[in-house]
Amino acid sequence: MLGFGRRRLFSALLQVQKRPCQPSRNMRLVQFQAPHLEEPHLGLESGVGGGVVDLNAFDSTLPKTMVQFLEQGETTLSVARRALATQLPVIPRSQVTFLAPVTRPDKVICVGLNYADHCQEQNVRVPKSPIIFSKFSSSIVGPYDEIILPPESKEVDWEVEMAVVIGKKGKHIKATDVMAHVAGFTVAHDVSARDWQMRNGKQWLLGKTFDTFCPLGPALVTKDTIADPHNLKICCRVNGEVVQSSNTNQMVFKTEYLIAWVSQFVTLYPGDLLLTGTPPGVGMFRKPPVFLKKGDEVQCEIEELGVIINKVV
Amino acid sequence: MLGFGRRRLFSALLQVQKRPCQPSRNMRLVQFQAPHLEEPHLGLESGVGGGVVDLNAFDSTLPKTMVQFLEQGETTLSVARRALATQLPVIPRSQVTFLAPVTRPDKVICVGLNYADHCQEQNVRVPKSPIIFSKFSSSIVGPYDEIILPPESKEVDWEVEMAVVIGKKGKHIKATDVMAHVAGFTVAHDVSARDWQMRNGKQWLLGKTFDTFCPLGPALVTKDTIADPHNLKICCRVNGEVVQSSNTNQMVFKTEYLIAWVSQFVTLYPGDLLLTGTPPGVGMFRKPPVFLKKGDEVQCEIEELGVIINKVV
Repeated sequence: MLGFGRRRLFSALLQVQKRPCQPSRNMRLVQFQAPHLEEPHLGLESGVGGGVVDLNAFDSTLPKTMVQFLEQGETTLSVARRALATQLPVIPRSQVTFLAPVTRPDKVICVGLNYADHCQEQNVRVPKSPIIFSKFSSSIVGPYDEIILPPESKEVDWEVEMAVVIGKKGKHIKATDVMAHVAGFTVAHDVSARDWQMRNGKQWLLGKTFDTFCPLGPALVTKDTIADPHNLKICCRVNGEVVQSSNTNQMVFKTEYLIAWVSQFVTLYPGDLLLTGTPPGVGMFRKPPVFLKKGDEVQCEIEELGVIINKVV
Repeated sequence: MLGFGRRRLFSALLQVQKRPCQPSRNMRLVQFQAPHLEEPHLGLESGVGGGVVDLNAFDSTLPKTMVQFLEQGETTLSVARRALATQLPVIPRSQVTFLAPVTRPDKVICVGLNYADHCQEQNVRVPKSPIIFSKFSSSIVGPYDEIILPPESKEVDWEVEMAVVIGKKGKHIKATDVMAHVAGFTVAHDVSARDWQMRNGKQWLLGKTFDTFCPLGPALVTKDTIADPHNLKICCRVNGEVVQSSNTNQMVFKTEYLIAWVSQFVTLYPGDLLLTGTPPGVGMFRKPPVFLKKGDEVQCEIEELGVIINKVV
């Protein structure tokens, strides 16, 4: 079971919460709600499992949604960087409700069949170009929210994925310029109703976009604070059992290629999400197939990015 | 060629513009820009081909985007109704730039194969349930904007469609309750790159969602001011030649069924768009096939709703 030394980290972070902010080396941008706030705020998660620094309290001129924050580019990012370097009070994690780090993006773009061994497990060829489908942004929920099992499906499956968050508008972006358009990365769960994915004229959309089918978070980890997004352990656990375990270095098409490719078709905007595909181990291709049921708990974890934990109800 | 008596209407409306607002019986909500305005405003188009009454000038507390206007429901609609019943100055059409009546909706939901004779022309069965796919909202452009022919496609085709605009949030909406969730209707052009629609793992999305592939407008015509949305002439002309001509009474699944069906999967929000499918006559199934080329002008027209005119560049 992949733990990434979380227990030690968690204990360390519990210590941190007793003192003013001991900034994490990673910049971990979050959207959160707390009892003393009238509306959601932007914040900095002080490391994986840590409390939250209120960015809107640090600078009241900052916007309160991540999409607007990203739209202002370097102006707002530099404020967050200043906050990260300052000793600031931390709201304990127990008092914070984490929302998805991005809500209401213009696009949730998904890539199918992007891990070679995931293609193998379903006996299909590795695609020669990225297979693109989508979710509606109404399917996005927070990192610890519930996944609602729809009565319309009997085959709801898991898929852990690394998500890229766009930071700067672009069209026809060259692969070499892509990282200038990326704000950072987060963990996504591409929940999939296999029965509906395969019906509906074989258009995957409906099976992918039920409400709550896109848990996201806990933080948008900015690109400059991740050593290498294409060398991160990625895993999914269902009720504690590891069901998917791989590394983002196994992706067929990497971030640079994917973003360049998609931007041939559409203008990308700040906040747009690109889910980069899932490794092998989904329930559908097990023998016999296994699907999610009420009461299950799914943990999707990516090294350096964190873990999202969603109960199935 | 379907004219719907437009020439007479247009002459009549030209007269209207010389006087204060002679309200149209239809409530025709628009988003527009004008030289004297700093940002886009909401307005009322004074009939098909008429000038525009500035709703934000009439009531400065109104929001300036259609999505926000719809989110406030009856509160804002009643202001628009008051404006419609009042003699107000009209900005001449020549001074107005019409934007799409809805921009940045949460969803652009599309229905495939929803006219029986469109199924026949491509030799496929009429579906037993609606086939749902989507466009990204970044593909939306205004009613007279240009359609940019992407160099990536050689097979760009036309599809006139009636679009339903959601006015009230809902999930698992009963067919009998659907119209309470509908704000109104508008004209849409579901521009389609057939080559990309059929590649990409047969996921239609990419072929449907190039930038500028969803011209929309000119107005959101509220439901209460349309006699019967399922009995409207619908046609598409390319360079003046009628290429599609039908009636919305030919739709396989009507608005009530479609919205109820889609709302099983997703929560619908104010501003969400549902494009209800296209009648026969698309370029792809002509013998030989015909596709759009630079310089073409496409007119999509629906009785009572109006006409959108988009040049291909």
